[in-house]
Amino acid sequence: MIRFESDYQEGCHENILKRLSETNLEQSSGYGNDIYCEHAKDLIKKAVGLEQAEVYFLVGGTQTNKIIISALLSPCEGVVCAASGHINVHESGAIENAGHKVLAISSRHDGLLDYKELEDYLENFYSDPTHEHMVQPGVVYISFPSENGTLYTKANLEKIKKICEKYKIYLFIDGARLGYGLMSEKADLNLKELANLCDVFYIGGTKCGALFGEAVVFNNLNIKNFKTLIKQQGALLAKGRLLGLQFEELFKDNLYFELAKHANTQAMRIRRAFEAQGVKLFYDSYTNQQFPVLNKSQFEYLNKDFKFELWQIINEELSAYRFCTSWATNSNAVDALINAIKNI
Amino acid sequence: MIRFESDYQEGCHENILKRLSETNLEQSSGYGNDIYCEHAKDLIKKAVGLEQAEVYFLVGGTQTNKIIISALLSPCEGVVCAASGHINVHESGAIENAGHKVLAISSRHDGLLDYKELEDYLENFYSDPTHEHMVQPGVVYISFPSENGTLYTKANLEKIKKICEKYKIYLFIDGARLGYGLMSEKADLNLKELANLCDVFYIGGTKCGALFGEAVVFNNLNIKNFKTLIKQQGALLAKGRLLGLQFEELFKDNLYFELAKHANTQAMRIRRAFEAQGVKLFYDSYTNQQFPVLNKSQFEYLNKDFKFELWQIINEELSAYRFCTSWATNSNAVDALINAIKNI
Amino acid sequence: MIRFESDYQEGCHENILKRLSETNLEQSSGYGNDIYCEHAKDLIKKAVGLEQAEVYFLVGGTQTNKIIISALLSPCEGVVCAASGHINVHESGAIENAGHKVLAISSRHDGLLDYKELEDYLENFYSDPTHEHMVQPGVVYISFPSENGTLYTKANLEKIKKICEKYKIYLFIDGARLGYGLMSEKADLNLKELANLCDVFYIGGTKCGALFGEAVVFNNLNIKNFKTLIKQQGALLAKGRLLGLQFEELFKDNLYFELAKHANTQAMRIRRAFEAQGVKLFYDSYTNQQFPVLNKSQFEYLNKDFKFELWQIINEELSAYRFCTSWATNSNAVDALINAIKNI
Amino acid sequence: MIRFESDYQEGCHENILKRLSETNLEQSSGYGNDIYCEHAKDLIKKAVGLEQAEVYFLVGGTQTNKIIISALLSPCEGVVCAASGHINVHESGAIENAGHKVLAISSRHDGLLDYKELEDYLENFYSDPTHEHMVQPGVVYISFPSENGTLYTKANLEKIKKICEKYKIYLFIDGARLGYGLMSEKADLNLKELANLCDVFYIGGTKCGALFGEAVVFNNLNIKNFKTLIKQQGALLAKGRLLGLQFEELFKDNLYFELAKHANTQAMRIRRAFEAQGVKLFYDSYTNQQFPVLNKSQFEYLNKDFKFELWQIINEELSAYRFCTSWATNSNAVDALINAIKNI
Repeated sequence: MIRFESDYQEGCHENILKRLSETNLEQSSGYGNDIYCEHAKDLIKKAVGLEQAEVYFLVGGTQTNKIIISALLSPCEGVVCAASGHINVHESGAIENAGHKVLAISSRHDGLLDYKELEDYLENFYSDPTHEHMVQPGVVYISFPSENGTLYTKANLEKIKKICEKYKIYLFIDGARLGYGLMSEKADLNLKELANLCDVFYIGGTKCGALFGEAVVFNNLNIKNFKTLIKQQGALLAKGRLLGLQFEELFKDNLYFELAKHANTQAMRIRRAFEAQGVKLFYDSYTNQQFPVLNKSQFEYLNKDFKFELWQIINEELSAYRFCTSWATNSNAVDALINAIKNI
Repeated sequence: MIRFESDYQEGCHENILKRLSETNLEQSSGYGNDIYCEHAKDLIKKAVGLEQAEVYFLVGGTQTNKIIISALLSPCEGVVCAASGHINVHESGAIENAGHKVLAISSRHDGLLDYKELEDYLENFYSDPTHEHMVQPGVVYISFPSENGTLYTKANLEKIKKICEKYKIYLFIDGARLGYGLMSEKADLNLKELANLCDVFYIGGTKCGALFGEAVVFNNLNIKNFKTLIKQQGALLAKGRLLGLQFEELFKDNLYFELAKHANTQAMRIRRAFEAQGVKLFYDSYTNQQFPVLNKSQFEYLNKDFKFELWQIINEELSAYRFCTSWATNSNAVDALINAIKNI
Repeated sequence: MIRFESDYQEGCHENILKRLSETNLEQSSGYGNDIYCEHAKDLIKKAVGLEQAEVYFLVGGTQTNKIIISALLSPCEGVVCAASGHINVHESGAIENAGHKVLAISSRHDGLLDYKELEDYLENFYSDPTHEHMVQPGVVYISFPSENGTLYTKANLEKIKKICEKYKIYLFIDGARLGYGLMSEKADLNLKELANLCDVFYIGGTKCGALFGEAVVFNNLNIKNFKTLIKQQGALLAKGRLLGLQFEELFKDNLYFELAKHANTQAMRIRRAFEAQGVKLFYDSYTNQQFPVLNKSQFEYLNKDFKFELWQIINEELSAYRFCTSWATNSNAVDALINAIKNI
Repeated sequence: MIRFESDYQEGCHENILKRLSETNLEQSSGYGNDIYCEHAKDLIKKAVGLEQAEVYFLVGGTQTNKIIISALLSPCEGVVCAASGHINVHESGAIENAGHKVLAISSRHDGLLDYKELEDYLENFYSDPTHEHMVQPGVVYISFPSENGTLYTKANLEKIKKICEKYKIYLFIDGARLGYGLMSEKADLNLKELANLCDVFYIGGTKCGALFGEAVVFNNLNIKNFKTLIKQQGALLAKGRLLGLQFEELFKDNLYFELAKHANTQAMRIRRAFEAQGVKLFYDSYTNQQFPVLNKSQFEYLNKDFKFELWQIINEELSAYRFCTSWATNSNAVDALINAIKNI
């Protein structure tokens, strides 16, 4: 059984494993005060082109979203996002647990927040005479790529950033799959450009080569006591060097982007195989997640030898499914899948 | 200038004022441990027909919603309501501040939660294989009447209650305007029936005769330490007898319902005056709030002598407005308004 | 039975009652947007000598403490206070419910926060190499008078303020019984001086002449969206004018201070009566609360005709009790009590 | 430089590293739904002797304490602990961030919660007529061993458990260093006995052989939606198998206890070396943490070649320091330290 269910099914890239072994008995200070974290931060600052950036390492995406968003908001402020945003759906109410409303805007746009809808929302909000009794927008949250594998163009990001500046709202980019987004054949901006178009974002390691780990980058923002906030959320890893060490490997010799590129290449092969069979794609994704719409017999045929995720039931006959590739996806496994697709 | 902006513009019914004066220098224990509260609770238990009910008095609606909902939910549970529900819009994120997501369902139904949509939502939720990563529905919140002045039929309430029972979810009715709902010419259930069709509800005093005050009624539910929860939310009035005394007056000799009836009668006069002029009503309300759709010149004409609230801009020309009557609405004031309406 | 249990046993001063009646059927905008609140704010700004102050009206003390403190703190900050502070003991964990630790310092000083202990605490905190893992002090909370009826001297307040400034911590004064403190024969500062020695404080109405109500005064501090924060905590009174109207009366013609003075005078009579009998006082209070230490037979004798509160069991024989006077305390009632004290 | 600063300075036991390598490219379901977690849970249930236990894996101690305690408490309940308890001092207010007060009781007892003091506290609490306005005790938290390296006897634990049962309060044991406690030469109870004397506890992996990981064991308690609570706190590791795999290794062939025993043996060698020099021990610890009281010259001498932690300044001349051993402590390193101690 070959699995395409998610992009966190395997362990980590071999370089990381090797480095874990080599350094295993070294003695380091805890909580990220170690040379691995120091070095990894330097590598990241260089890669994002922000020498003054503040970089922090966290373990997983939900905790990262929760900590960043709650650090940016005052108690009566909320976070604006597309209704399909991960924080609005699949984080068990982490944001609300921190006291903040998720201000969801319709997501008819393949998971992307439409800048025009955002502007309308904000305009309506401030022109509503009762807005003093409502949750105040304080942060805009977007994912790059979105939960549906789609991408913002540079022009769209610039528009969203401008709107945020106009209304004095922070822009935060969830980069749990950042590598897959930036390495997409459709991406029209690079890491440095993205870093400059937001106030804070993170570089997802868990889904792209690491055992776990997300690197938060604040651009021109200094959150008072941010490390204490991390500790308060139970997210300060005792052996923090494990995070530093992993990002060191990922940002040495461009590994992070190589891995992402590999995953995208495999995903594009799958996409084209489905297209060749006339299978419709639920979202127009050029990243590592593909969402073919299959009928029952097609599903059953593929389901014999492959695991993939039911995404959404469309009607009695049709459903959308998710196939993920990752840094670890074996090219032979994709060959096997493509052969099967040819016979559906 | 005659005002129809809201139903909390005046003070309180004269009986209450008289009683406040008579008892002003009496000495009572604080925090609701007094004979006025005791007596008022008895009157309410009798009126709702639940001798075993637990009754508590609070000051205002938002605090009541927050305290009840947070008392009923565990940390990862949320409250289901129509998107137009007061808790979802105009309480500044009070529910989220208590840590809980408001699970808003479309409100295409004049502010009512559609039982079919509720059932679909719950069915979809539990059949979603990822629901372990989502906020769990724990309470259903409805308003009677709704924020749009509309009413649930008894049959609809029964269906909603049955769905809640099936999924082991509490049903809570916000009764900030309860009197106006129950006394509507279209209401097909009475207080006792309503009390029996939910787990907890409250009887709004602020908008119906009192200076302030909401009476919470738990039907067959004993919340541990509920008074401590009230105190923790800063909602335990030191001179609690003020609440008891007001509800005593309201539930003596049926005053509460007489006041509500009066407001509804005046509202129906306004409704018919608009209808006579061919003015469309934005919601089909038979309670104390009326929502005519006016064009600019109609608005300007009425706006000269009357104050009322802009509810929603429909297009360049048309907007919906809110006119409220209340226990205090003067019949002459309504005469004047009706005369004006005749000339729009 | 004459009651000295608390200072919130009666209703309100007759001027307020009269004004409630006179204005009862006037129509006002809700939520504090009315001429009564406007005027009351002006009176208060004048009384405190801070023309640029921001003034807000709230209903009760616990909600006021919770809202102010949570508005001033970021998520990992806490509030420093004497262990006997009201927020640490008798508010059901309202501060913690808002997410913040109460950093209690020993209260061996009759309920006062000792400035030297405060300074030591802060010095130790910042010199502790692990303080990044601890709750950061963000606000200092003191009560004037303290929960034990005692007072800070002007010199002590100045020292506390200086320490707060040195460590960039806000100073907040709980003035639930402010009038009784400022009118004490031992007070060496006035309202204007006190207002200048803190960042925010409140003037308690509930315990000093009003039915309910606390007036918050920010000195040189502009909290963004403070009204929305009030609403979020369920503390924005719909008929806000009730608060404005009460403070208008209290700050017209010095009434607030006259009422406080009356209560203190009566309390001093009680104090001297106990002292004349050789009864020890548990705290050295010159405000409206007195804490005599009584043995069992003394307690039983007084308990026949008077109600007062057990404060603390000292040993098998002795306990401290609390006797409160208030703006409403009848001079004849105190005569009766004094006569009884003479016979214990 | 040899480091004795903490017990989380190195990586993990070689068996774990080996297993990580062997399984690295296996594909598993995420979030703990994998065979490694399944197997590890079985091993743990067997080890603790509770076939019906619920076992969960978390990443670190602070998040574990926060999630368990907030899952057990209703909003107005708090957690009772010794003032020195980790949750009260070094978790940045994680418990308060979850809305709950830490009810700290004096810790004059080397970090242990005294059962008599606990009983007195609870008795006083419930006999206080104002306790309805106070935070209700809902959980008792103790650490085994305590933060000071000390241990509860079986008899003491039984007494604490009995008190908890009497007052219907949960007993939760923080076992961040559980192995070191159970393997102490002074421990008079084993894992099964400890598991039976509480409602929930955890087995610390981070400090005892794992890269990270804590195994929570509920004894006879089924928390609804516990996994969703974990997710909500951002603590559900995507590659959950990493946790399962580590505990599998630790509970295979008794490894966890062997590692703990080794650390204790080395710590006892250090203890005896200090005692032989007449150095006083600040706490009477027989576990892996030792707290010698050193004067300035002794400190300086040892500080040349060894790193250890300043624990508490006692006076101008003397301070207590912490030396930790761990599963990874090299016997030669201890030899070197002992040689140095001989010369202080």
